[in-house]
Amino acid sequence: MTLDPVLSRIDADLPQALDRLMALLRIPSISTDPMHAADCAKAADWLAEDLRAIGFDAAPHVTPGHPMVVGKGGDTGPNLLFYGHYDVQPVDPLDLWDRDPFDPALEDTPAGKVIRARGASDDKGQLMTVVEACRAWKAVNGTLPARITMFFEGEEESGSPSLVPFLKDNAGMLTSDIALICDTGLFDAKTPAIVTMLRGLLGEEVTITGPDLDLHSGMYGGAAMNPIRALAGIIAALHDDTGRITVPGFYDGVPELPKAVAAQWQGLGFDAGEFLGAVGLSTPAGEQDRSALEMIWSRPTCEVNGITGGYTGAGFKTVLPSKASAKISFRLVGQQDPLKIREAFRAMVREMLPPDCTAEFADHGASPAAQMAIGDPAFEKARQALSDEWPNPAAYVGCGGSIPVAGYFKEVLGMDSMLIGFGRDNDAIHSPNEKYDVESFHKGIRSWARILAALAG
Amino acid sequence: MTLDPVLSRIDADLPQALDRLMALLRIPSISTDPMHAADCAKAADWLAEDLRAIGFDAAPHVTPGHPMVVGKGGDTGPNLLFYGHYDVQPVDPLDLWDRDPFDPALEDTPAGKVIRARGASDDKGQLMTVVEACRAWKAVNGTLPARITMFFEGEEESGSPSLVPFLKDNAGMLTSDIALICDTGLFDAKTPAIVTMLRGLLGEEVTITGPDLDLHSGMYGGAAMNPIRALAGIIAALHDDTGRITVPGFYDGVPELPKAVAAQWQGLGFDAGEFLGAVGLSTPAGEQDRSALEMIWSRPTCEVNGITGGYTGAGFKTVLPSKASAKISFRLVGQQDPLKIREAFRAMVREMLPPDCTAEFADHGASPAAQMAIGDPAFEKARQALSDEWPNPAAYVGCGGSIPVAGYFKEVLGMDSMLIGFGRDNDAIHSPNEKYDVESFHKGIRSWARILAALAG
Repeated sequence: MTLDPVLSRIDADLPQALDRLMALLRIPSISTDPMHAADCAKAADWLAEDLRAIGFDAAPHVTPGHPMVVGKGGDTGPNLLFYGHYDVQPVDPLDLWDRDPFDPALEDTPAGKVIRARGASDDKGQLMTVVEACRAWKAVNGTLPARITMFFEGEEESGSPSLVPFLKDNAGMLTSDIALICDTGLFDAKTPAIVTMLRGLLGEEVTITGPDLDLHSGMYGGAAMNPIRALAGIIAALHDDTGRITVPGFYDGVPELPKAVAAQWQGLGFDAGEFLGAVGLSTPAGEQDRSALEMIWSRPTCEVNGITGGYTGAGFKTVLPSKASAKISFRLVGQQDPLKIREAFRAMVREMLPPDCTAEFADHGASPAAQMAIGDPAFEKARQALSDEWPNPAAYVGCGGSIPVAGYFKEVLGMDSMLIGFGRDNDAIHSPNEKYDVESFHKGIRSWARILAALAG
Repeated sequence: MTLDPVLSRIDADLPQALDRLMALLRIPSISTDPMHAADCAKAADWLAEDLRAIGFDAAPHVTPGHPMVVGKGGDTGPNLLFYGHYDVQPVDPLDLWDRDPFDPALEDTPAGKVIRARGASDDKGQLMTVVEACRAWKAVNGTLPARITMFFEGEEESGSPSLVPFLKDNAGMLTSDIALICDTGLFDAKTPAIVTMLRGLLGEEVTITGPDLDLHSGMYGGAAMNPIRALAGIIAALHDDTGRITVPGFYDGVPELPKAVAAQWQGLGFDAGEFLGAVGLSTPAGEQDRSALEMIWSRPTCEVNGITGGYTGAGFKTVLPSKASAKISFRLVGQQDPLKIREAFRAMVREMLPPDCTAEFADHGASPAAQMAIGDPAFEKARQALSDEWPNPAAYVGCGGSIPVAGYFKEVLGMDSMLIGFGRDNDAIHSPNEKYDVESFHKGIRSWARILAALAG
C-alpha cells in the first residue's frame, strides 16, 4: 500500500476525472425547486452507479425528500465516513451567467484553468475529489486503505429536512470513527485549511400583510398602511448604528475569541482590504469594534437574503400592495440558541408591527454553531498530509458558512467531523458563473489520497 | 334633438353595449409590458373601427410608443374633447384572480351585476360609456349634439411618454372648448362626482448596489454590506414617526385646504372607518394630524410600489445580493414641484448610502397636481345633468389618483378639463379581480347623454 503510485495514477487520470465531473455537473439537481426533483434523483443514481464502478456497495436511499446515496467499501483499517452533497443552489438571475449553468466547460483564466458550472465548487467538484482519490487507490492497490462509507446528501441547499431522520434510522450503517466533510475552502491559493469552527444558521421568512388586497396607491395612498414600509422599518431596526444586531438576547452565548486562536489567526496575514476588494467593497460592514476576520468566522450575523413586495416587473405600477415578505438568516456562533433567537426575532417583529399589519413566519431551518474536536490525533495527521501536498502548511481556521451536518453527526451519531475542502473565495458559489479551479480539483484528489494514507497508516 | 328617446335607446341597447365592451376587454393591452405592444395596437384599431361605425372620422395615430386614437364627429354646437385610455395595468399576481383577467364575464354579486376583467373599470368600461352615449344619440337623432373629438390614449398606465409630444404636434386637431375626462369615480354608489383637485405623481426607481456580485452570506455575511439592508434603511427613513415625509423641502407648496372646501367635504359624510374597513384596515396610516379624506385627496404621499432584492423564489437561498431596488412614488398636491422633489429625494438617498454602496435612479414620470376651473359654467351644467340621473346630487370632490393628462391639456393646449367617471372604491382597479358595476356602465352612458344635452343646449 504505497502512496506515490496512487498520486501518479491521479495525475494520469485527471482528464477522465474531469469528464466524469462534467457528466455530474450536467444534471440540474436544484434541491429547493420542486421542478427539479427528478434531476436530484438522477444525480443520486449517477453517483451510486459511479461508486459501484469502484467496487463500493452503493445505492440511493429513498427519503421523504431527495435520495441519500450511501456506499460502503474496504475491509481493513479505520472506519471513515465521507460526506458531500450532490444538490446545488438555484441559478437565478440567469441573465448574469456567461453560459448555461448546466453546460459545464473548462475555461482558461489568468489564474489558471477552471471548471465553470453551477455546483462546480459547491459541492459536486469537491465531492468528486473524494471519489476520485478512492478510485485511484483502488486501481493501484486493488483495495481501499480503510473501511469507507460514502454518504452524499441531496438536500444540503434546502435545509436538509430528511437528514436527521435518516441519520437516526441508519445509525448503524453510518456511524464511523470520524466523518470527513468536503464542502469548505482553502485559506488561500497556497494554504490548505481544516475548519475548526462553523457558524450555525437560523433561516426565517416573514410576510407582512397590510390591506386585504392590492390597492391603487392613488385612491388609498396616504390612508392605507403599506406593508413594504412596515417591513423596511423592521429590517432597518435589526442593526443599530454600530452594526450590532438588536434582537433582544441575541448575543447570549457569543464567546470572546480565545487568545491562542486570535494569535493563530493574526499569523495568517488575512488581508481584509483584498478580501473585500475582490468583490468591489472596502469597508467591513459588521460590528465596528471587530476585525473583518472575526466578522466572517467568529461573530454572529443577520442578513436579508431576499425581499419582495408589490410590482417588480418592467415599468411602473402604482400599486399599494397587500403583502411584502423577506427571507432573513442569522449566522450563529458559540452557544447561541437558534430556537430562542427565532422566538426573540418573531416577538420583535410582532412588537414593531404598525396598526392593521399582521406577520406570518415560515421556518427555514435552525442549527447551532459547531466546534471541532481538534484534540483527536486524526486532525494532526490530516494537517501534515495537507501540508505535504500544498506550498504552505495547513491552517486551522473558522468558517462563516453553516454546515449543519457536522452538528447532526455529533448530536445523532456521536461522531466528530473534520472539514477539509479546496474551494476558493472567488468560486462564486451560490452566484452566477460559479467555478472550481482545476488545481483545486487535482490537488484536492491528491490531498485525499495523502490523508487516506495518513489515517490508515 | 330630444333627450328622452336617447335614454330609452340606451336602455334598450344595453346588452349589445355590454357585448361590445367585452370584445374590447378581451384584448390584453398592457402598455407597460413590451410583450403586449401588438395587443395595444389591436385595441386602438378596434376603437377606431367602432368610432367609424358611429360615423366618426377616426383612426389610430402612430407614436414612438402605443397609438393614439382620434375620432372627429358632429358639425354643430360646442367643441368637446372626450379623453379615455384603452391600455390597462399588468395582471400579476395572476394566482389571485378568480378567472382569466382577459376573459370577461358578467357576474351576479350581492351588490348587483358586475363586469369582471382587467380594464373593466380602468378605463375601458368608462371610456365606452362615452362612446355608447354618442352611439345612442346618433341612432336616435341622426347626428351628434356637439362637435366631438374622441381622444383615446394607450400609455396612461405606463407614464404617457408620447402624450405631450402628440399634443404639441396635433394641437389644432385636439384643442377644444373643454376636455371631458372619464377616468374617475362616483363619490359613493348613489352620489356622482366631478373631480376638482387631482394629485400629481412623481415616479422613481432606485437600485442600490453593494458588492459587485451576489455573494454567499456565510462566506461574506457580516463583513460585506448588504444592499437590502441599505435600501430598507432608506425606505424606513422616508416617513417620520408622525407619518410626515422627510424628504427635505417636500412640503414646500402644499396648501392648507380652503375653509369652504373643507366645509363641503365635511358635508359629504365620508366614513373613514368604512372606507378602510372595506379593505381590512382600521387606522389611517398617514400624517397623524390629518383626516383620512385629506390623506387621500389633498395631502401628498410617499409609497413604495414595489421592492425586490436577493432570492425571492420558493425555499431559501443564503445569498448576500449585489443589488436591491424599489419603485417609489410620490403623490403631489398644490404647488409642489415634481422636479425639485425628485432632486431632493435623490440627494437624500445618496446622502444616506452606507460606504461601498451606490445608487442608480430611473425616472418613471413627473406631473404636478391640478386644480380644475370650476368657475366655467360647464361645471354647473354637468353637475345638474348628473344630479338628474343619480339618486343624490353630484359632489365636487378631490381625487387621490393622478391623471396627468388634465395638467397637460392645460399646459400644452390651454384647455380646461372636467373629470367625471363612474368607478367605485371597490372596483379593484390595478388589483386582481377588477370589476365595473353594470349600473355604473348603464347610468354612466345615460349620464353622458344628459351632459351632452346640457352642454349643447
